[in-house]
Amino acid sequence: MNKIHDIAKKYFNKEVTDRDRAIFEAGISLGALFHQFLGIPLPKNKKLINNIEDTIKNSISTQPYVKSVEVKIDYNQLKDVKNIYDYSVLNGENLEVEIITNYGDVTIHSRLKYIKELDFPLMYIEKIDD
Amino acid sequence: MNKIHDIAKKYFNKEVTDRDRAIFEAGISLGALFHQFLGIPLPKNKKLINNIEDTIKNSISTQPYVKSVEVKIDYNQLKDVKNIYDYSVLNGENLEVEIITNYGDVTIHSRLKYIKELDFPLMYIEKIDD
Amino acid sequence: MNKIHDIAKKYFNKEVTDRDRAIFEAGISLGALFHQFLGIPLPKNKKLINNIEDTIKNSISTQPYVKSVEVKIDYNQLKDVKNIYDYSVLNGENLEVEIITNYGDVTIHSRLKYIKELDFPLMYIEKIDD
Amino acid sequence: MNKIHDIAKKYFNKEVTDRDRAIFEAGISLGALFHQFLGIPLPKNKKLINNIEDTIKNSISTQPYVKSVEVKIDYNQLKDVKNIYDYSVLNGENLEVEIITNYGDVTIHSRLKYIKELDFPLMYIEKIDD
Repeated sequence: MNKIHDIAKKYFNKEVTDRDRAIFEAGISLGALFHQFLGIPLPKNKKLINNIEDTIKNSISTQPYVKSVEVKIDYNQLKDVKNIYDYSVLNGENLEVEIITNYGDVTIHSRLKYIKELDFPLMYIEKIDD
Repeated sequence: MNKIHDIAKKYFNKEVTDRDRAIFEAGISLGALFHQFLGIPLPKNKKLINNIEDTIKNSISTQPYVKSVEVKIDYNQLKDVKNIYDYSVLNGENLEVEIITNYGDVTIHSRLKYIKELDFPLMYIEKIDD
Repeated sequence: MNKIHDIAKKYFNKEVTDRDRAIFEAGISLGALFHQFLGIPLPKNKKLINNIEDTIKNSISTQPYVKSVEVKIDYNQLKDVKNIYDYSVLNGENLEVEIITNYGDVTIHSRLKYIKELDFPLMYIEKIDD
Repeated sequence: MNKIHDIAKKYFNKEVTDRDRAIFEAGISLGALFHQFLGIPLPKNKKLINNIEDTIKNSISTQPYVKSVEVKIDYNQLKDVKNIYDYSVLNGENLEVEIITNYGDVTIHSRLKYIKELDFPLMYIEKIDD
C-alpha cells in the first residue's frame, strides 16, 4: 500500500498538499458517481431503491482514498408506474450523495445535491478536517 | 396499460409482428444494460457483488416488456485488492446476463456472454417461444 | 468476415431468421447509443453540436451489422447559457436517432424519438425490407 | 454570472479557498469525463478519432470553471478491424486527458493518464498556478 502510494505521488506536482489531494479525490469520485449512474431506470419500490443506493455506495467506495459514501434517491420524486413507459431514471434532481475522502491527515466531507435556485445538481465541499 | 400499448404501436411499421417486437425489446435491454453499467468499480466481496447483480437486474427489469433479468458477475475474475489502485471494473469479460422479454404470445430468451473465440461480449438469442 | 459470422451464429438458436437478427441488432444499437451518451454536457453552439452528432454516429456505426446511423440533437431545446450552471445535457427529449441495420437480405430502419403522448423516448421499427 | 457564483458559494464551507475550489472542479471534470465516455466504440480511422476527441473536449469544456480540455486517444492501440467483432472501445489505457480549471486567481493543470507501473488510469495534478 505505502509503495503504491509513493509511486502515484511522483506524478503529482510537489506543491500538492494532503488537503489538495483529499479535495481532488472527492471531486473525482463525485464526478465519476454522477456520470456513471446517471440514467439508470428506477423501479418504484422502496426495497429495490435501497438496494440500488447500496450498489452505488459500494461501487464508489472501491475508489482510492474514499472513506465512506452515502447515497439517497428521493423516493417521493419517482413516478407512480401507471403504464410500462412510466418509470423514472436516476437524474440530477432525485439523487443526493455524501462522500468522505481521506488523504494523510485531511478528511473532506463533500456532497452532491440538487439546488433549486441554481436548477443544478451542485457538488460542493461541506467540511474540511485538517 | 392497453391504451399506452396501442399508442406506442402506432409508431411501429404495420408489418412488425409480436415476434419482431419481443426480439427488438430484448436487443434494446441488452444494449442498454451493457452500456449503462460498463465501467462501474467492483469491490472484491461476494455479498457486495450479489448486491450489484441485484441492482442491475432490478433496474433493467423496469424497462418495457422485460419479464426477467439474471445477472452474473464472475467473482473469480475480480482482482485481489493488493493496493488502492488494484480493483476491477465491470467489463465485457466478467459479466453474463440473461434477459427474457415477452410481447403478446412470444417470449424471447436472450443472453450476453463473453465468447473467447470471438474475443467479444456477444449478445444472442437462445430461445424463441412463439 | 464469413468465418467470424459463422462462429457467432452457432450461439444463436437455429430458428433465428435473418429478419430476427437484423431486428435484434437494431435494438442493441439503439439501447447502447442511448445509455452510452445520455448525460453528456452540451454546448450551445451549432458547430459543436454537429460535431457531437457525428461522434455518436461514427461510434455506433462501428457496431456489428449497423449500416448507417443518423443523429439529431434538437438545438432549439438547448438552454441559452446565462450562467456557468446553465447548460443542457443529452436526454430522452432532445435526441432523435435513426439506425439502419442489415443482416443477410434483411434491412431494418429503426428510430429513437421522444413521443409527447407517451412522455417517453420511444425506440421503434419504421420499416422492414426483406 | 457573479450572482450565480455567489449563490453556489454559500453551499461551500467558508474555509474553502480558491485553490481548493479549482482543484475540486478539476477532480469533478476528470471523473465525469472518464465515466461518461468509457466504453464508447471506436472506429479505426484517424479523422473519426479526431472528431471523437473534439466531442469529448467540447462536451467537458461546458462544465463550470473548466478553462480548457485536451483529449488524446492512442490510435496505435486501436485494433485493426479484421472482422465485425474486432473493434476497440474507449478505456483507461488508450485515453489521455489534460484539463485546466480556473477559480479566482488559481489555475490547475490536471491530467488523466494510464500509468504502467500502477496498471491504472491515474488522475493527477501537474501544476498549480496561484
